[in-house]
Amino acid sequence: MPTSREVAIFEAGIKLGALYHQFVGTPVSLESVELLERVIERSVLSQPFVKKVHVSINKDMIKKSENRFGYCELEGKMLYVEVSVEVEGETVRALLETDETGYPLMRLEE
Amino acid sequence: MPTSREVAIFEAGIKLGALYHQFVGTPVSLESVELLERVIERSVLSQPFVKKVHVSINKDMIKKSENRFGYCELEGKMLYVEVSVEVEGETVRALLETDETGYPLMRLEE
Amino acid sequence: MPTSREVAIFEAGIKLGALYHQFVGTPVSLESVELLERVIERSVLSQPFVKKVHVSINKDMIKKSENRFGYCELEGKMLYVEVSVEVEGETVRALLETDETGYPLMRLEE
Amino acid sequence: MPTSREVAIFEAGIKLGALYHQFVGTPVSLESVELLERVIERSVLSQPFVKKVHVSINKDMIKKSENRFGYCELEGKMLYVEVSVEVEGETVRALLETDETGYPLMRLEE
Repeated sequence: MPTSREVAIFEAGIKLGALYHQFVGTPVSLESVELLERVIERSVLSQPFVKKVHVSINKDMIKKSENRFGYCELEGKMLYVEVSVEVEGETVRALLETDETGYPLMRLEE
Repeated sequence: MPTSREVAIFEAGIKLGALYHQFVGTPVSLESVELLERVIERSVLSQPFVKKVHVSINKDMIKKSENRFGYCELEGKMLYVEVSVEVEGETVRALLETDETGYPLMRLEE
Repeated sequence: MPTSREVAIFEAGIKLGALYHQFVGTPVSLESVELLERVIERSVLSQPFVKKVHVSINKDMIKKSENRFGYCELEGKMLYVEVSVEVEGETVRALLETDETGYPLMRLEE
Repeated sequence: MPTSREVAIFEAGIKLGALYHQFVGTPVSLESVELLERVIERSVLSQPFVKKVHVSINKDMIKKSENRFGYCELEGKMLYVEVSVEVEGETVRALLETDETGYPLMRLEE
């Protein structure tokens, strides 16, 4: 049977994979970006085992990506996410952040 | 060439199809549902030609659909949406609402 | 009441908005891209009023977008879609294609 | 630093969370369901560390869920998924299956 720490790690992966593929593609602008950050946080928090979550969307990228209609779509590389998951007293932190190659990397915090 | 009214009708269809498939599946609870309504509205409003939008998610259905962890996923049948689209002075209103068979129907307002 | 042609135009908009926001973000590689084209076509064809659909994903863009793991995510600008919708004998054709500014434009065929 | 087994567990969670929120909502019918199974498998296989994946969609549920137009939308409870992830020689298997309460549960195989 997996340990509590292993289950927490598994759940942290689920949460990051889920939010990424739920929200990537959402039309967003500089005006709506903070509301979108909050909604992503709330949708993660509503799921089991989540203790804390912080979502930050890169506003510079939003600005640069805005099309002639003044909006863009949320892309993975715009997302910075920290999530803490707790299972039976074991807490695990995981991150989603863009690495130096531009890849939106999900990783366990060391 | 399509008329302004035809373009407005086309754009109204795009907006409803887009929001439906972007947000269906989002984890949501009674506590986060109103924030989700606002974010859907903002994401629609950020798109071209949209004049007005109103999103309402059925709270009774949320309550009934909540799983043992206290949340559910947004389903199409929970959504009521009105959107007004304007193209060169021609305004069109379209709706998304669940019909009597439980099908989430999108239609032009007569 | 809307005419058959207007309903067909509305339905064409729905189909393009829906497929875009359903499939953008899907992990895809040169090896899986044709299967993804077929699945998008089938998912559109399964919906009411659709007579014909053609989906083509830009393989050059896939190649250029592939990350160090050999895949990328489907983006709107990679998509070329033609859809024919028929309502009571009235047929309408609509397109999704990237315009000269890189914007994935949906439009009625003239 | 996380162990190879822990990274594999994390990656398995990511894959299940991702596919769930990417594909739930896809219009599907009895005729297209097997093609959709294959596309989900291919999209998972294209991602890093995935060794094997099996996706099965419940055809009875599809049949029961079909609306008057002969299709339905993919729901989480219709999905059965097994995924094997390997990181530096450590292999982990994870499942997505509907539990006795109807909840689409993701879990590590014991």
